[in-house]
Amino acid sequence: MLEHFFSPGTVAVIGASREEGKVGYDLLKNLVTYGYKGKVYPVNPHAENILGIKTYTSLKEINDTIDLAVIVVPAPHVLKVVDECSAKGIDSIIVISAGFKESGIDGASRERELHQKIKQHSVRMLGPNCLGLIDTQSFLNASFAADMPAQGNIAFISQSGALCTSVLDWAVNECIGFSKFISMGNKTDIDEVDLIQVIDEDIHTKVILGYLEGVKNGTAFMNAAKKITKKKPVIVIKSGGTMAGAKAASSHTGTLAGAENAFDTAFKQSGILRAKTAEELFDYARIFSHQPLPKGPRIALITNAGGPGIIAADAVERSKLEMASFSKNTIDLLRAALPAMANIYNPVDVLGDAKADRYKFVIEKVIEDPNVDTILVILTPQTMTEIEKTAEVIGEIANRTDKPIATSFMGGKRIGTGLEVMRQRKVPNYPFPERAISAVEAMYKHTLWQKKPASKIKKFIIQKEKATSIVEKIRQMGRQYLCEDEAKQVIAAYGFRIPQSILASTEAEAVQAAEEIGYPVVAKISSPDILHKSDFGGVKIGIKDAAEIRRFFSDVTQKAQRLMPSAEIKGVLVQQMITGGKEVILGMSRDPQFGPLLMFGLGGIYIEVLKDVTFRIAPIGPNEAEEMIHEIRSLPLLKGVRGEKPVDINALVDAILRLSQLVTDFPDILEMDINPLIVFPEGGGAMAIDARMTISQTANYTQNAHKM
Amino acid sequence: MLEHFFSPGTVAVIGASREEGKVGYDLLKNLVTYGYKGKVYPVNPHAENILGIKTYTSLKEINDTIDLAVIVVPAPHVLKVVDECSAKGIDSIIVISAGFKESGIDGASRERELHQKIKQHSVRMLGPNCLGLIDTQSFLNASFAADMPAQGNIAFISQSGALCTSVLDWAVNECIGFSKFISMGNKTDIDEVDLIQVIDEDIHTKVILGYLEGVKNGTAFMNAAKKITKKKPVIVIKSGGTMAGAKAASSHTGTLAGAENAFDTAFKQSGILRAKTAEELFDYARIFSHQPLPKGPRIALITNAGGPGIIAADAVERSKLEMASFSKNTIDLLRAALPAMANIYNPVDVLGDAKADRYKFVIEKVIEDPNVDTILVILTPQTMTEIEKTAEVIGEIANRTDKPIATSFMGGKRIGTGLEVMRQRKVPNYPFPERAISAVEAMYKHTLWQKKPASKIKKFIIQKEKATSIVEKIRQMGRQYLCEDEAKQVIAAYGFRIPQSILASTEAEAVQAAEEIGYPVVAKISSPDILHKSDFGGVKIGIKDAAEIRRFFSDVTQKAQRLMPSAEIKGVLVQQMITGGKEVILGMSRDPQFGPLLMFGLGGIYIEVLKDVTFRIAPIGPNEAEEMIHEIRSLPLLKGVRGEKPVDINALVDAILRLSQLVTDFPDILEMDINPLIVFPEGGGAMAIDARMTISQTANYTQNAHKM
Repeated sequence: MLEHFFSPGTVAVIGASREEGKVGYDLLKNLVTYGYKGKVYPVNPHAENILGIKTYTSLKEINDTIDLAVIVVPAPHVLKVVDECSAKGIDSIIVISAGFKESGIDGASRERELHQKIKQHSVRMLGPNCLGLIDTQSFLNASFAADMPAQGNIAFISQSGALCTSVLDWAVNECIGFSKFISMGNKTDIDEVDLIQVIDEDIHTKVILGYLEGVKNGTAFMNAAKKITKKKPVIVIKSGGTMAGAKAASSHTGTLAGAENAFDTAFKQSGILRAKTAEELFDYARIFSHQPLPKGPRIALITNAGGPGIIAADAVERSKLEMASFSKNTIDLLRAALPAMANIYNPVDVLGDAKADRYKFVIEKVIEDPNVDTILVILTPQTMTEIEKTAEVIGEIANRTDKPIATSFMGGKRIGTGLEVMRQRKVPNYPFPERAISAVEAMYKHTLWQKKPASKIKKFIIQKEKATSIVEKIRQMGRQYLCEDEAKQVIAAYGFRIPQSILASTEAEAVQAAEEIGYPVVAKISSPDILHKSDFGGVKIGIKDAAEIRRFFSDVTQKAQRLMPSAEIKGVLVQQMITGGKEVILGMSRDPQFGPLLMFGLGGIYIEVLKDVTFRIAPIGPNEAEEMIHEIRSLPLLKGVRGEKPVDINALVDAILRLSQLVTDFPDILEMDINPLIVFPEGGGAMAIDARMTISQTANYTQNAHKM
Repeated sequence: MLEHFFSPGTVAVIGASREEGKVGYDLLKNLVTYGYKGKVYPVNPHAENILGIKTYTSLKEINDTIDLAVIVVPAPHVLKVVDECSAKGIDSIIVISAGFKESGIDGASRERELHQKIKQHSVRMLGPNCLGLIDTQSFLNASFAADMPAQGNIAFISQSGALCTSVLDWAVNECIGFSKFISMGNKTDIDEVDLIQVIDEDIHTKVILGYLEGVKNGTAFMNAAKKITKKKPVIVIKSGGTMAGAKAASSHTGTLAGAENAFDTAFKQSGILRAKTAEELFDYARIFSHQPLPKGPRIALITNAGGPGIIAADAVERSKLEMASFSKNTIDLLRAALPAMANIYNPVDVLGDAKADRYKFVIEKVIEDPNVDTILVILTPQTMTEIEKTAEVIGEIANRTDKPIATSFMGGKRIGTGLEVMRQRKVPNYPFPERAISAVEAMYKHTLWQKKPASKIKKFIIQKEKATSIVEKIRQMGRQYLCEDEAKQVIAAYGFRIPQSILASTEAEAVQAAEEIGYPVVAKISSPDILHKSDFGGVKIGIKDAAEIRRFFSDVTQKAQRLMPSAEIKGVLVQQMITGGKEVILGMSRDPQFGPLLMFGLGGIYIEVLKDVTFRIAPIGPNEAEEMIHEIRSLPLLKGVRGEKPVDINALVDAILRLSQLVTDFPDILEMDINPLIVFPEGGGAMAIDARMTISQTANYTQNAHKM
């Protein structure tokens, strides 16, 4: 896939320049400097040769097939050059040139033309407005970066070209190697999904790093990511998050959802590790690049200083890792061999006078302990410390074990050569133990993800036609919001239990309805124009007799006519009164990038004040529904406090899955809340008391969104 | 204070050694190598001279007064040497030797003897089991560290000697200077409080860094810290936190308090900045050391790359800082001078081709903007970037402005010389912008602390004698737990409103009491042995008539006799039934280090499930009580949701302050809960419905604790 981009036999540089410091010069120089074996053809109408290479006045003139064209001409000429490339039969193009959608309205229109041309010629394009790409296996440096990284097993894809230059400079300093290094620019054609697929098949890549500000197609991204993360870790820093303002929304779910939660959820569901900072991105990369995955959470700390050992143990406590409890055998061995003052339990304190041999003994014994999954070796430069030799010892042990080892040599000047040894031996060192713990934790999370069974989607037998006919009817009426009773009919078609209710359009009908249902009843105003019925004062519970329901009917309809004269009042919904159980909220808000974002939380203040909710992108399976339930802080309330019985968790899982199926079946539903869903004590099931729903005015909204 | 430790005229080293690699050798060598101007007297019975210096067989033999003795003899000889020091009239001693309480029971007993001797001779001592100390002003290196740091304005005090060696090694590498560098060891005599007082007066110290695992005297520590932090920032990493198991406790407050919350609270109340990691400690130190404090939260970002600018803006959004909005004047100036593609709003993108002059222009204009408090300059090494020259420009501007400037030059090899320039120019650079933002945020927090008015303690007129007599009576009865009615009498004496209630010891009395109070009433079992009355089923609310109260009385007393035959049953407390208002909990748990730790939160599930509580160490003033109320997540519930009236916040503040006064007046109270305290709508006051309290069996617990 995209072979011509990464191992072309021939490369043409259109816009190659004689002038040092120009992008067209730097790029050509990078192509010929780092050992690329293919042929390079510079194109420049005004030069005979550049850097000693014969230069052509145009593509046509080149008497060879060209696998990859790199375009560095000014933006206004790019379209013409793309036509020439196509005429020459070139199928792979990198457009380095800036001056497209990043530069304003004219640039955006130029980019649309470029996109059309690419599609029309059926060629693939990286860029525009990018740094280019590097493939260390083919020694191809088709970028204007200032350096060539060493060969390694990390692939880096970035939406920011500038960040690429910083990363490269850092990597050269730290001797970090890369397999591929790709600046995506404006992602007009090739995007993160294409590149993930390329890297998935690339035997030289073990770890994928990404810097993303957004994704072009959320669903495709998740599918590609889910597949690759089962084999290779993907670590992404996603920026631009907190800046996004919350969009106007008519549901609780819509208000709480937001792009940030969608990204977090999508990453979680596809096994992507999200780095919170750029530093974390590289801290994680280094350990994944060279160390095996831990089998479990149990970490052993070995230190020559008490303080840093405590700092590290604190960090373990705060993480998902656990302090390993050594086997009796290990403890006996350590007790027999170490000085009396040494701490032989975890963290093992080998004492300040420990030389390399003592470290070696302890690491070898501890790593053989079946209760240990990972080792962190901490070293402070004491007078007696053999820094380099200890580094050698660690490197040698790391080389022959299948458990991951990280180190935290803490210091500066004196530990320099030790760090150098560790770099060569592929043991990741972290200047502070907390960062090492965080990196090991990331690996452990990846272990858990790899072990996690794929989610199985459960299909309920439902009445889809019935739901369709309600939604279609509303749309044909030109309405966007469904009334409570309409929304409840839709969810009832998907198997939700709803209270018995009768819509009454007159006082007399209301009395009749209440008598049919049986007092006490609940009454609610019914109007597609009044969404927040409680806030409006349009709900009354515990109505005990005919007089009371008559009075409510007349009061509430008059109030509506007075306050909202243009609202369509359908009457009053008379409803069975439900008592007991716990109120939860289920909802969905359709994210423009990732689609249906399900939400779950406890109702009332838990959602409004504490925002104690959790999200998943539908469709989901039973495991994920259970995860959702277990993620909220107020879970103990569902399990029962002070001797209460637990609620019917199975019914709740069932409800979440039915909602998942509904919003997957109906891309037309833009937002919805089921609020409250009452969950009764164990075995009692659940009942949807109220629901609201917003639909799009054009069918198949999701598919349109993906074309954007 | 402690002058002889930091600028002695003469130093004796008892246990000086000829053997390289021995502590007694390294220490002597450090004393004579780094320019210390005083006289050094090695003492060793077996050597004539060491390192070319005349050596004495004993202290007596030295014909000079000795200001400071440094003892490096093996632990068993230390006590004898201390006697000799005292005989020689030495008042300042550093004991380097290990083998005291850190090494087991024998060592601990030796340490107690050492402490007695020190007190008896009225000498001051640093250590034992420490690395020693360094004072760069007097060029004194009385430690066995492997290096001497440069002069600077950072003082470092550490409870871990090994961490000192790592910090020193790091500092030498980073060209970070120190004023004083002190390893405290076991803190048998001199501790963090003494050292804070020394550093408070030290004109060469601007910033104090500390590594602490605990403090010896919490109250003295807070007082010293409160004083110094108004002048100088104190940044502390406190470790060993999460390891501490929760102690067994009989109150909600006791269960939730714990040593970690006590430390966090003490640090907050004394203006100490707590670094979460060792890396943060030094990130903060570097900016405080060289940059002025920001006047406000508004930060300007200037970058030559979009991606890192977004990353930094995200970090600002997550912090207490704000993105500065430039004045029209600044925007006009930037628009006129920068290329059209540049972003002239915050973050300013000077573009990838920006040379030093463009950075200079923008920094100068932005720093003059009255809407900007701090500047962060981000640089990625692009082809055209003038790294060193830009660093010079930044250093030059930083030198003449009173606003703080930090940088984030992102990269490795190519930015090396730029970083060197910045180090010389005292501009702190952070490899990733998030770390720079976190450091600036720490400075801004310190600005806020310095502006914060000192808390004024309000003294209520209360009936202390009445409370004393109740507590004394309970103690004389040999009881530890107060009954509800007893505890409520104590708080009533401190001005808490309590519901009318009558203790009934027979069914008939209960009926009479209920009639006097007026139905409906609440009835509760009264027994000093049943603390959790609700869990026991010993509370009934809404009792409407005589039959009901008779039945409750007989049921509950029989149940108690059946289930807890040894419990003392005093009868049933009949109580006025209170409706309306919001339930909060006030409590106190006495921390062994810091004393009375007040707790506040909403009652019921907010505390039990969500643990949404906040702490302060008493005594506190009205500002702090208000801060507590504003810190809980569920604050909106007190302010009123969905049209409810807000509760009486003034009454709540009043209640917190009365509790503060009570627990300050009575060190005997070990733990207490007022749960619930009902706070009525604005103007309605508050009422304590239930209370529980535990007292110590010996008076003046606090004072004893401080002697530990």
